[in-house]
Amino acid sequence: MMDFVPLYNNDMHQGKFITIEGIDGCGKTTVTALLVKQLINEGYDVVHTREPGGIDIAEQIRSVILDPSNTTMDARTEALLYAASRRQHLVEKVIPSLYAGKLVICERFLDSSLAYQGVARGIGMEAIWKINEFAIESHMPDITLLLDVDVQTAMRRMADRQGKDRLDQESMDFHHMVHDAFERIASMYPQRIKKIDATQSIDRVVKTMRDKLDEVLHG
Amino acid sequence: MMDFVPLYNNDMHQGKFITIEGIDGCGKTTVTALLVKQLINEGYDVVHTREPGGIDIAEQIRSVILDPSNTTMDARTEALLYAASRRQHLVEKVIPSLYAGKLVICERFLDSSLAYQGVARGIGMEAIWKINEFAIESHMPDITLLLDVDVQTAMRRMADRQGKDRLDQESMDFHHMVHDAFERIASMYPQRIKKIDATQSIDRVVKTMRDKLDEVLHG
Repeated sequence: MMDFVPLYNNDMHQGKFITIEGIDGCGKTTVTALLVKQLINEGYDVVHTREPGGIDIAEQIRSVILDPSNTTMDARTEALLYAASRRQHLVEKVIPSLYAGKLVICERFLDSSLAYQGVARGIGMEAIWKINEFAIESHMPDITLLLDVDVQTAMRRMADRQGKDRLDQESMDFHHMVHDAFERIASMYPQRIKKIDATQSIDRVVKTMRDKLDEVLHG
Repeated sequence: MMDFVPLYNNDMHQGKFITIEGIDGCGKTTVTALLVKQLINEGYDVVHTREPGGIDIAEQIRSVILDPSNTTMDARTEALLYAASRRQHLVEKVIPSLYAGKLVICERFLDSSLAYQGVARGIGMEAIWKINEFAIESHMPDITLLLDVDVQTAMRRMADRQGKDRLDQESMDFHHMVHDAFERIASMYPQRIKKIDATQSIDRVVKTMRDKLDEVLHG
């Protein structure tokens, strides 16, 4: 079993670290943009980011991961590269913003690695946890919003976006694994991870997300 | 304390995995080349390598680490990148060679990361061990030859090589830390790590190295 002792050490700064998670097609980018807009309107000083977040070293690492000629890349090599990219983005962008008292809203973080690499790629959550613990140290999110949507709906949204009319079974199986992994992770960290029903209307999803942040923003 | 249960799982192949370690200036490259030559003369099928070992992905990772414009690279980012490069070199080159029954002789491996990144860079050996355990899995060296030389001698050799007549104190302190770390690691793994007095003549060092391999080669 993973050592799930929360690593919270966020008393050292006034910022809040919020991560947004969910399977492909859950609507993350759309609703996060609207949430950020609303928070800015409310007067919050928000940094909206996702890895590699424009950090030069993290971008270089990402380009190694995504180089299509790297067909021989081992799954563990890839996992270590994601952790390296995460570390650098955290150190250069997230942590300084937190110390400047900002709200940092990051699309995808630790939990995506647990779900995609730990479960769907078969490396195991505990192993992925260990290298991410090394990368993150004490800088866990204050709160994580998990956009929960069934795989059928998410795939239909992605198909619409990509102009495809169907997805193959292999892809469906993969997304089911990721979906179930997120469910498991949410049940492991009930304090930190708040599930949001992302099959609702966009406005409704954004409102629910905003409501869930109350405790962190006023705490 | 690190989990020092040996991960040996080398019964699955006929190859032998030999690593050569030591501080900068210990003479690794010179004596390893001579050792490899001798083993080939004896009829052994030898693969002589060092990370990134010509592996394309590992070379790409190394070039991110060594890019002089990456002055903001965090020590943990660097450690994760070294582990990623190690993983890929292991999977693409070392493991296939071991399964082909070869002797793989690799200059620097896990112990260098423990000494340089764990101790000299201050990350801690246990943390470096964890990410390398992830990278290496069960593929620990069958034997490690540690070329032991005092820092003064090593630095004099390096200065000769580089045409410098002195090294600054900061550099001396760093190399002392690495030297002492290797001593500590050797005392932690007495079964695997064999210390070689590398202040002897080159011929003598190579002969001692060769003798230490007897048990592994005939075991």
